[in-house]
Amino acid sequence: VVEENWESMSETELADRIREFDVLVLSRQPNVPRELAANPGNLKYINYMHGGVKGNIGLPFIQSPIKVTNWGDHTGVELSEGALALLICCLKDVHHRIMRIREGMPRDAPKISSVGGRINGLRVGVYGYGLAGKAFVRMIDALGADVRIFDPYAKDLPESCTRVDSLEELFDDIHAIVIHAALTGETRHSVSKELLAKLPDHGIVVNTARGAIIDQEALFAELKSGRLRAGLDVLDPDHLPVDHEARQWENLIYGNHCFSQSKSFPGEERLERNQEVMLENLRAFAAGEPLNYVITEDKFKLMT
Amino acid sequence: VVEENWESMSETELADRIREFDVLVLSRQPNVPRELAANPGNLKYINYMHGGVKGNIGLPFIQSPIKVTNWGDHTGVELSEGALALLICCLKDVHHRIMRIREGMPRDAPKISSVGGRINGLRVGVYGYGLAGKAFVRMIDALGADVRIFDPYAKDLPESCTRVDSLEELFDDIHAIVIHAALTGETRHSVSKELLAKLPDHGIVVNTARGAIIDQEALFAELKSGRLRAGLDVLDPDHLPVDHEARQWENLIYGNHCFSQSKSFPGEERLERNQEVMLENLRAFAAGEPLNYVITEDKFKLMT
Repeated sequence: VVEENWESMSETELADRIREFDVLVLSRQPNVPRELAANPGNLKYINYMHGGVKGNIGLPFIQSPIKVTNWGDHTGVELSEGALALLICCLKDVHHRIMRIREGMPRDAPKISSVGGRINGLRVGVYGYGLAGKAFVRMIDALGADVRIFDPYAKDLPESCTRVDSLEELFDDIHAIVIHAALTGETRHSVSKELLAKLPDHGIVVNTARGAIIDQEALFAELKSGRLRAGLDVLDPDHLPVDHEARQWENLIYGNHCFSQSKSFPGEERLERNQEVMLENLRAFAAGEPLNYVITEDKFKLMT
Repeated sequence: VVEENWESMSETELADRIREFDVLVLSRQPNVPRELAANPGNLKYINYMHGGVKGNIGLPFIQSPIKVTNWGDHTGVELSEGALALLICCLKDVHHRIMRIREGMPRDAPKISSVGGRINGLRVGVYGYGLAGKAFVRMIDALGADVRIFDPYAKDLPESCTRVDSLEELFDDIHAIVIHAALTGETRHSVSKELLAKLPDHGIVVNTARGAIIDQEALFAELKSGRLRAGLDVLDPDHLPVDHEARQWENLIYGNHCFSQSKSFPGEERLERNQEVMLENLRAFAAGEPLNYVITEDKFKLMT
């Protein structure tokens, strides 16, 4: 049943309507009435097709017998491909190259001067090893990068990667830092001026997670001076003013969330990953099998 | 011994000088005097640090007892990373995005409209499975692409990939075509107007091999109309005139050889791959072990 009139319902009406069903499937809207946690009626399972459930679905549900799942590794695939794309664009100095090509160059001009670097053998520090971090590490590990990971909450790391025990250590002797951490009190501004200063000249910063994890003022100073390169899908605040000079910096790829929101190929009927996860979990629920991506209290607390 | 004065030597003087040594190491220059093939003196091994040996080292050497090796998979690594970078830049519509970001966009403007597509699940046709093709397939296979390969000379293909028996078949039902073939009479202009027309709207053409493999007029027509997307490190002729309109096409990344000539990270002392191959082969020669990347007559004939 698709309930199209939820926007005109009061919270009590909405709760009553939801109580009629075993399963609620939703995506971002509406907020699930809190009273359902204590008095769920038939409701046994909330299948949330988006990511962080903190806003729409409160802790009382997570602590109740009602199961809650989310889109699982949907963003793992998207964020990790976005991060890989930004890393490669930085390595190939794509912004700089495109501008030189557009301007035209005579045949005998010097080759486009580029800093370069390649993934094969690149020393990459990965900050955060959740679903996105895992998917990203799987990819660059296969491409021959030398990967080190900092995530105090991660249990098993791939054998081919090195675990480091602090952010300070992560920034030692790497070419590129790639951020896949959640934004928490602990991670906010944790990529500080001091840590950025540890990166080598032409070192690369990639962020598809949350802008506020980086001390953006410090990073922008490093970008303006030309010392570092960056691929940033997120900023803090998230939108760069129309006339901001950073839009013209050729050592910056500003993705504005688009690198990690890759659509299926046009004209394809293929399901998005969150739709696949949703359907598979509905099937499992109907069959009485274990659900994937259940939001536990521990997971809930790490969400942003 | 480094012979610095070869440029001032006559061909006979150069041949005499080379006859003094067991091994000749060279890169592109000079041409090896042909008379050495029949009368080599001490010369037993030519270690060529570049790729195609047809110009500098003639067939008589390949047919003689003198061993000839080249830079092996040096370009495999470079060309395949270049092709991956161009494919990703096309998928993410990077040229288009960078221009929109530079122009500035108000906060409430519609999101950058982009065609999109992602590597995970992308149906990629790979034309040519030599060293570069192999390295490329290894990478995109690991990234979850659905790979099909056309190469009548390739023996073993990875199990996860599909072999097709003709170029026509390769162009059936793919999102992207990636060219890693050598330029021969057989491959010249083989990516024809008819084959390009088989690609879906927004389909992608990536070429880091040789420009003349594609019917460029047909491809440029498809790009100008906006129907296809392309990442081209090579063209035919190789240089795009300064005022050529294609430089401004936002559905084209024109790499001008730079995508597949990735340098080591700046400030690194790391050896380039051809230097590693050269040193390993010198070690093997001194130890009486088999050499890597020996140019056989069959290989020589496939070279361009």
